[in-house]
Amino acid sequence: MSYLDRIETCNTYDLNHFRPFSVDGVRVGWIKHGLTEQLNRWPDVFQVMNSGVNIGQQLRSFEQRTEVVRAVIGTLVEEGVIARRHGEMYPVTNASRDDALFLIDRASVAYFGLRAFGQHMNGFVRDNGVMKMWLGRRVATKWNEPNKLDNMVAGGLPYGISLQENLAKESWEEAAIPVELLKRVVPTGVVTYCAETPQGLKPDVIYCYDLELQVDFQPHCTDGEVQEFVLWPVEEVAELVRETEEVKRNCNLVIIDFLIRHGFITPMDEDYLELVTRLHKEPSPF
Amino acid sequence: MSYLDRIETCNTYDLNHFRPFSVDGVRVGWIKHGLTEQLNRWPDVFQVMNSGVNIGQQLRSFEQRTEVVRAVIGTLVEEGVIARRHGEMYPVTNASRDDALFLIDRASVAYFGLRAFGQHMNGFVRDNGVMKMWLGRRVATKWNEPNKLDNMVAGGLPYGISLQENLAKESWEEAAIPVELLKRVVPTGVVTYCAETPQGLKPDVIYCYDLELQVDFQPHCTDGEVQEFVLWPVEEVAELVRETEEVKRNCNLVIIDFLIRHGFITPMDEDYLELVTRLHKEPSPF
Repeated sequence: MSYLDRIETCNTYDLNHFRPFSVDGVRVGWIKHGLTEQLNRWPDVFQVMNSGVNIGQQLRSFEQRTEVVRAVIGTLVEEGVIARRHGEMYPVTNASRDDALFLIDRASVAYFGLRAFGQHMNGFVRDNGVMKMWLGRRVATKWNEPNKLDNMVAGGLPYGISLQENLAKESWEEAAIPVELLKRVVPTGVVTYCAETPQGLKPDVIYCYDLELQVDFQPHCTDGEVQEFVLWPVEEVAELVRETEEVKRNCNLVIIDFLIRHGFITPMDEDYLELVTRLHKEPSPF
Repeated sequence: MSYLDRIETCNTYDLNHFRPFSVDGVRVGWIKHGLTEQLNRWPDVFQVMNSGVNIGQQLRSFEQRTEVVRAVIGTLVEEGVIARRHGEMYPVTNASRDDALFLIDRASVAYFGLRAFGQHMNGFVRDNGVMKMWLGRRVATKWNEPNKLDNMVAGGLPYGISLQENLAKESWEEAAIPVELLKRVVPTGVVTYCAETPQGLKPDVIYCYDLELQVDFQPHCTDGEVQEFVLWPVEEVAELVRETEEVKRNCNLVIIDFLIRHGFITPMDEDYLELVTRLHKEPSPF
């Protein structure tokens, strides 16, 4: 396997399985054909056509759309068409979080093929000239990708909370990193991908961060989502990404971006140009 | 002005002015319509059609293509159709440098709309907690963008020299950086753009590097291409990029990438996602 294969895994989809989803004519996502037939049961909410699904201008306001779609999803969750409710609300947007057209439950985001935002932080130390990276192992009871290795801190970004607040919250919950240490955190860009899942499509944007920690800092999980933390030389983490499926799929991309920015993957890699461009594509296939 | 405007400046082109240029059916570049009419004078070399220009399989080998195109360019330079010869040879490729189909004089690369590769190095220091960046001011006699501010080291990448060798050579010529100091250089990715110029099209790939220097290091130019070096706080360099046209056009992009990677441009910037994706696009409009 190669780094490029890891990126490919997160960028595999077939748009023939989907119809575009729009809000008042603005494309925001993609819906699988099977679900569009279900949505056809609510013609007052969804205009379902062969060319796409639209929430029309009869639902004018942010609040109206949020409320009506919440009710539809409630029924679909009861019927088992949509697997579950998450509880956190995500913005529906084809641009940035601040341009939300309405809000939707996090567990429905992939069903509607909506752009979702997350934050992942690479925690690392320099130990006698050797750079080492912290990774957390997800608990066995996680809904997706249990037992896989994760970035030190990684989480979705709900609506109505700032990037700083959410990062501070996740850093404390997942790794017991106090807010004082976060003063040294460096935002380093974004990684994007677009993956088809059984539920639908995930055109995701991950805000990436680096945090250099003291060698003696010991993370521990406060919310029960991480079973253990490991601190490994970056070269070993690189091999793990390249040669195994131990790392959560989208975390591979965040680590590959780290390896490029810190010179562990060099221009001598024959895929270098493609790695850099594919990690940073416009995520939504519009 | 905004950072996005600087990226836009380097990504402005109209493909209606061009025809695709292929080698044995493989697209490698774009040629302005005016030049295609000139090339029509050499039907044994160039098949000129409305749909594009092709160097056919009658010219089978790397050496044959290189030699025949060199002769055509010689005539076009004598006639003033192509402005000049540079003397360095560049690879003709739609992939990486190692996949060259033939070689062409550097000063003709834009006329044929070929992918070109360069290397730019950000030199910086940390001075009492303030990060400062070295910039060089180009001499007044430079053929393009004289007197503009440039990255500490920046140069094109001719064929037949490794990335390491070329960076060492440019670092010594442009800033008198000894090869020992380059042991600490970090390759950090690529920046790409595609710009239309009076000559043609420039779909360029710049390999980017960071070099942290001691506070007392003083660069000086050994080849007469830089008139002075300045060391300014990164925040001031950021303002210069955003608010002025003091910086060479493509160096703005290398600096914006540096500002993102080091957290000087943050996700609070409303253009953040677009900045990151546009700096790293597939450069050739195929």
